[in-house]
Amino acid sequence: MPGSYAPTGVFVCFEGGEGSGKSTQSRLLRDWLEAEAYAVVLTFEPGDTAVGKELRSIVLSPETGDISDRTEALLYAADKAEHVDTVVQPALDRGDVVITDRYVDSMLAYQGAGRALDVDEVERVARWATHDLRPHLTVVLDLEPAAGLGRFAERDRIEGESLEFHQRVREGFLRLAAEAPDHYLVLDARAPVEEIAAQIRAAVTPYLPQAAHS
Amino acid sequence: MPGSYAPTGVFVCFEGGEGSGKSTQSRLLRDWLEAEAYAVVLTFEPGDTAVGKELRSIVLSPETGDISDRTEALLYAADKAEHVDTVVQPALDRGDVVITDRYVDSMLAYQGAGRALDVDEVERVARWATHDLRPHLTVVLDLEPAAGLGRFAERDRIEGESLEFHQRVREGFLRLAAEAPDHYLVLDARAPVEEIAAQIRAAVTPYLPQAAHS
Repeated sequence: MPGSYAPTGVFVCFEGGEGSGKSTQSRLLRDWLEAEAYAVVLTFEPGDTAVGKELRSIVLSPETGDISDRTEALLYAADKAEHVDTVVQPALDRGDVVITDRYVDSMLAYQGAGRALDVDEVERVARWATHDLRPHLTVVLDLEPAAGLGRFAERDRIEGESLEFHQRVREGFLRLAAEAPDHYLVLDARAPVEEIAAQIRAAVTPYLPQAAHS
Repeated sequence: MPGSYAPTGVFVCFEGGEGSGKSTQSRLLRDWLEAEAYAVVLTFEPGDTAVGKELRSIVLSPETGDISDRTEALLYAADKAEHVDTVVQPALDRGDVVITDRYVDSMLAYQGAGRALDVDEVERVARWATHDLRPHLTVVLDLEPAAGLGRFAERDRIEGESLEFHQRVREGFLRLAAEAPDHYLVLDARAPVEEIAAQIRAAVTPYLPQAAHS
């Protein structure tokens, strides 16, 4: 499937399991880029649009209870469709750097590898939802599920899944990274925060337009 | 694409534009079947599951405002996935007659023909959502959009679309019926209610197991 890499703007995604430090690292990257005078949009999935907020509450609330695997995947896909059309693509069209905490890979790992759905079918839906827009760089913060989940006293619908589920999710992320190594940076999430941040800055730098950096 | 027609149970869908009499006719069919001693499940899309109810409110409420065409299609698909997995398929597995007011064809007509989406792509998503489960018979109650919409003083998000949109939807239904005439019954919705009901009973009868009919 031919991916379409945003022709203007720079698109960076953070992926990984629960508690792997995605939000910390995405904020550190945003702060550094802004200090370097880049226009940055820091966003996340699911839930960073009006309709996405309602969908996030459906998919994550333990009150939702059992929903079918396909229903769950399609709700995540709907969130992505709205996110790309109203947040990500408009920002890329302005030439901004877009940093998102989770994107298509999370759907492939959680709803594909994690659930009993065919990953290729889940990918087809996810690519259609997102107009096949691909990140320039995806940073995977890799962590043993047991270590990440230990951080949460209360778990949402997805965090509350079994350790085996989260192990399949982890393997899903690593498989995606192995399939397109040029567009992935896999880091050990247990390394010191500043060390991880420096590796991410180094990997993002080649994608940045030099004009803004003056 | 090979459709899978429910091996047990009988699956009948009602399709058509707003105000074409789908709910009246689906109730009349249900009442007749029950009088004939068949077990019947009368249901509808979108919204006849717990999560579907929330999705129905998102897609139909005018307060939702503009959402992307793909978002809308994926929300309808999520509703269908949950509906088939938790309502339609279990009833068919019991051998019941399932009557639904709207199904996949509505998504193809409204989100495919009506919106600016590729109908084949919308169909692929809808078929995945529903495990490609196809009705034995789809009854299309055909009506000029202007006649049907005139019945509503207050319109929801979809009813409030332009007459041209509803004209494309009508043509969408007729095209689907023309492609698989053995599985469709197209009726003029302006005919007398009892006359339409009799034609529907005659078309459904060959699909009914004779055992229950004693």
